[in-house]
Amino acid sequence: MALDTKGREFGEQDRVSDRVKKHAIRLGICLHTCHSVIICLKQTPNPTASEFIPKGVQVPSSHLGAVSQSPAVGSYSPAIFTNPMMSTPASLAPGLSLSAGSSPLHSPKITPHASPTPHRHGHVLNHSSFPGTADGLPVGQVVANASPVEAPSLAAMVQNETVRGTTYFYTDPRVNQHPGMVFPSYHVYPSPSPNVAYMQPKANAPSFFMPDELRQDLINRHLLTMSQIDQSENPDIPAEVDNYHSLFPLEPPQTSPMQKSNTFGYTTTCYKAISSKDCMPYCLRRIHGFRLANTKCMALVDMWKKIQHSNIVSLREVFTTKAFGEHSIVGLFYFELFQFYFISNKCLLPESLIWAYVVQLSSALRTIHSVGLGCRVVHPSKILINGKTRLRINCVGIFDVLTFDGHQVNPLARSPQFQQEDLAALGKIVLALACNSIAGIQHDTFHKAMDLVALNYSPDLKNLIVYLLSGQSRPRSVNDIMPMIGARFYTQLDAAQMRSDVVEEELAKEVQNGRLFRLLARMGTINERPEFQKDPSWSETGDRYLLKLFRDHLFHQVTETGAPWVDLGHIVHCLNKLDAGIPEKLSLVSRDEKSVLVVTYADLKRCFDNAFSELLAAANGQL
Amino acid sequence: MALDTKGREFGEQDRVSDRVKKHAIRLGICLHTCHSVIICLKQTPNPTASEFIPKGVQVPSSHLGAVSQSPAVGSYSPAIFTNPMMSTPASLAPGLSLSAGSSPLHSPKITPHASPTPHRHGHVLNHSSFPGTADGLPVGQVVANASPVEAPSLAAMVQNETVRGTTYFYTDPRVNQHPGMVFPSYHVYPSPSPNVAYMQPKANAPSFFMPDELRQDLINRHLLTMSQIDQSENPDIPAEVDNYHSLFPLEPPQTSPMQKSNTFGYTTTCYKAISSKDCMPYCLRRIHGFRLANTKCMALVDMWKKIQHSNIVSLREVFTTKAFGEHSIVGLFYFELFQFYFISNKCLLPESLIWAYVVQLSSALRTIHSVGLGCRVVHPSKILINGKTRLRINCVGIFDVLTFDGHQVNPLARSPQFQQEDLAALGKIVLALACNSIAGIQHDTFHKAMDLVALNYSPDLKNLIVYLLSGQSRPRSVNDIMPMIGARFYTQLDAAQMRSDVVEEELAKEVQNGRLFRLLARMGTINERPEFQKDPSWSETGDRYLLKLFRDHLFHQVTETGAPWVDLGHIVHCLNKLDAGIPEKLSLVSRDEKSVLVVTYADLKRCFDNAFSELLAAANGQL
Repeated sequence: MALDTKGREFGEQDRVSDRVKKHAIRLGICLHTCHSVIICLKQTPNPTASEFIPKGVQVPSSHLGAVSQSPAVGSYSPAIFTNPMMSTPASLAPGLSLSAGSSPLHSPKITPHASPTPHRHGHVLNHSSFPGTADGLPVGQVVANASPVEAPSLAAMVQNETVRGTTYFYTDPRVNQHPGMVFPSYHVYPSPSPNVAYMQPKANAPSFFMPDELRQDLINRHLLTMSQIDQSENPDIPAEVDNYHSLFPLEPPQTSPMQKSNTFGYTTTCYKAISSKDCMPYCLRRIHGFRLANTKCMALVDMWKKIQHSNIVSLREVFTTKAFGEHSIVGLFYFELFQFYFISNKCLLPESLIWAYVVQLSSALRTIHSVGLGCRVVHPSKILINGKTRLRINCVGIFDVLTFDGHQVNPLARSPQFQQEDLAALGKIVLALACNSIAGIQHDTFHKAMDLVALNYSPDLKNLIVYLLSGQSRPRSVNDIMPMIGARFYTQLDAAQMRSDVVEEELAKEVQNGRLFRLLARMGTINERPEFQKDPSWSETGDRYLLKLFRDHLFHQVTETGAPWVDLGHIVHCLNKLDAGIPEKLSLVSRDEKSVLVVTYADLKRCFDNAFSELLAAANGQL
Repeated sequence: MALDTKGREFGEQDRVSDRVKKHAIRLGICLHTCHSVIICLKQTPNPTASEFIPKGVQVPSSHLGAVSQSPAVGSYSPAIFTNPMMSTPASLAPGLSLSAGSSPLHSPKITPHASPTPHRHGHVLNHSSFPGTADGLPVGQVVANASPVEAPSLAAMVQNETVRGTTYFYTDPRVNQHPGMVFPSYHVYPSPSPNVAYMQPKANAPSFFMPDELRQDLINRHLLTMSQIDQSENPDIPAEVDNYHSLFPLEPPQTSPMQKSNTFGYTTTCYKAISSKDCMPYCLRRIHGFRLANTKCMALVDMWKKIQHSNIVSLREVFTTKAFGEHSIVGLFYFELFQFYFISNKCLLPESLIWAYVVQLSSALRTIHSVGLGCRVVHPSKILINGKTRLRINCVGIFDVLTFDGHQVNPLARSPQFQQEDLAALGKIVLALACNSIAGIQHDTFHKAMDLVALNYSPDLKNLIVYLLSGQSRPRSVNDIMPMIGARFYTQLDAAQMRSDVVEEELAKEVQNGRLFRLLARMGTINERPEFQKDPSWSETGDRYLLKLFRDHLFHQVTETGAPWVDLGHIVHCLNKLDAGIPEKLSLVSRDEKSVLVVTYADLKRCFDNAFSELLAAANGQL
């Protein structure tokens, strides 16, 4: 096979010089199979060494020292990439640590010991010994010209200067804006902030998802959002209902088709559905066999649609449809991906959790009552829980459509009654939570239940239930329970803010990964491209040739012993420098070892952008 | 140059057959320059077509239909990758849309029109016509054996079966667990959830960072955390203080070295510093020229260290040091990266914002007072703001060290007095916020300031200030102001929960990118590796050869016209399938066009894992 032959030829030449090479490397001598033999002086980590500084180039000596303290792979599981040098980061002399750079199989600039990773937990004060500093260029290293073919494009790209027969390619770096202070000129990864790293769960506060659970939860949500049915096996589910498609049942099928919802008194089914308008997932709740008599109720629906609250599942719209083969009314809600229904606990609930629910439910009721509406669905089956303690009331507004009385002049006439019922329902729920059974809601067991509450919980909680369930001289108001909640508001707020910090910390870890992924993906479209614009050597010549060498620098380095050097820290590090196009220099060695090119990341970035723009232009038919 | 020559040879051969190819492609004919000429029948998108199904292989026909509705590039800025087909996703006949697959330069399986991207906003009900379904295999397509060299490794890897001279490679896919329901078998990206997408700012609620600001804020924080000084230009800053290094001044240098802090009455300086123990950033506050007389005060410091609250910057430790060349005491705090000090506003503040501050400050004070301590730093200069409305009190505990009275038996003896001062200080701050100037704090202007408050804000706010600043018959308590806050607790909590939803939504977008990046990085270490274990053809043979073809499939596809097909959606899509190792089949075409390999992503995943394990083993010296 053609590729194979090529491979084998390549191999012979390598195997021949192999033993010699290893030896040469150990001596710090860069051996060449071609005309010129080049001696690389061992480089010292001292930044003041007589390094070639191109005209007008002035790089801060402590250029980004912080890097090596930064957990460059902070947001990556170390299990996936292991760094062979992790074990002995400090055990090697600086001189030695850089000599491996001359190995013909990789560029001299970076070596395993220069990886940002090993230093991660080290304490390095001598900035100049960092990777990413400008002192990495071997002193007096001989740099041959690039092959004549790409010389012109190279020349057009970067300035170059020849000193003692050594050609240096460079561009003027940006000037350091803050004398004495060094800000990262490319993205580096800070360690987690201590306030999250050392966060302790609080006894009296509701718990919330910590990082790992949070990520698992997010992935589960993705799964549920993207799940769908096999149309062929579910002929009864319509392909499309109004502007919604890809219906996916969210509730187990009824035992009998005649089974009615305890809440609404009609048969109901609930689907996830995708809107054709905004492509977002919604929750579609169908009320079977309901014929809308009076469209005046839409006035109430409009009021509901205006309500936005973090503890209410927002109603999007209500419409009638025959898509299910009969007259149905459909309520569309935001799809909240709250998977778990209320009350599914084995043991007695901590009082802090019950109060967390009380605060959120009363918060929702207060918003609803304040606009003159009644909730009417304060029922365990209509309350969704997520993230352990976050709660939302579901199916609001449906009742106002089902039981709309066209003869009423004022559609809100019965709201005061509904609001009283809401508060009583809230009382029943708190009671059910406190004795951890729906049974508590039944009237005959009420007193036994209250004794349980008095036994296990604070008087405040008992008083709250009594206020909500026992007869009152004047109408109850959700505002009356605020004093009973009292300082627990502070607890809830503290917990909510702490949770926010946790999620934000996770986001901070990930926020750069999309960018890095796009960068690698773009590089993939350029490197090794077999053919472009009838030029099969496109990815091998000119700007692209440098990028090919950079690819090797990134991925294919080996240690002195010839073992592969696999270090995600190094990859992330170099990619961030490339993306920022910093003036820092690096040397790239061609595979045939004939040329060593000293270029800055800024040059590479220019090559990269040019090459990719060419591809895009061609893709868009502009070439 | 060797690489160049190689390139040119490669080129010739290509240029020769170029025109012929283009024509062949248009006819849907896959033309080969070698012995065998193969006719590809145009494939139909109909999944029930008589496709070869290997023994015991049964793939759900609607395998992951949802994919094509998923914004596969959801978390990527489309600006970076543009899809040439975006414009005309539906305008091509399905037959045609797939024939291009036979183009020798890329594998037949995926074509631009089959990209998940174009369908993104489309409404596709025929699942079987999706990319990612199992029907992509051309009917009766002739599949030549892989070259003898890799045949054995291939055989060991996957089962294969020859039908009508066609060899199919396959493995038994997993059985679908949920009949009638299809859950994604690899990661796909849901659209944003509507409750965040349609989130409206609330008039009476404190505002918070929306996604873009949030990301910018995170990046700025990274920058500040990683910034450091140039040691050589800052000789006065010690390299190391106790267990902390890399000091970075957080406050502008004093105008005169004798300048004293208004708060503490000593010269103070503040640095960011990295801990050598946990490598995390901390805020180091130095009190110049202070000699600690009595270590009993450490009892108070220990109390402070125990306080964890989302509105207090936690104190980590206090120690004395001579590192600055004189006796100094140093307080170490969590580095919160809250950049902005309090009160830096031009116009009158919205009342909702003032209440947001009141709630958070009183929450902090309540926590401090409840353990018997006094805050003593309720001062604009010690209050940090972030994310528009989030607030933290800084420098707690310092005063208890500076003014510690060793003669007191009970170190908390003066706390009641301090707590009263805290509440008065809170009153001054609220007043200063309400009339938006520190001047309001001065006593002589008090009444004018109060008139302003009465003019612009609610009576509640005025009453709060009056309660905190005017003399009271009995000692004030932070608990007394809860009723004045009242229902505003609900507003704060709602805002905090909404913000949490926004941040979580952002995290949901990014949470998969780290994984994808690692995947591409690992692939980079395998593809085109010049030499491994003395075998230069390692990356070109056996398992790795399949991965090389997959790389081409991923990055180097072209359209019928030979234009590059650049589509991040396709790349993300295929990588997720690879990572999940799903049973879906795809066909890979070798560059020399001699062989078409039909493999499943599961097979590719196995190749991938094997190859990378080999590398890691070698890197860890186990080979």
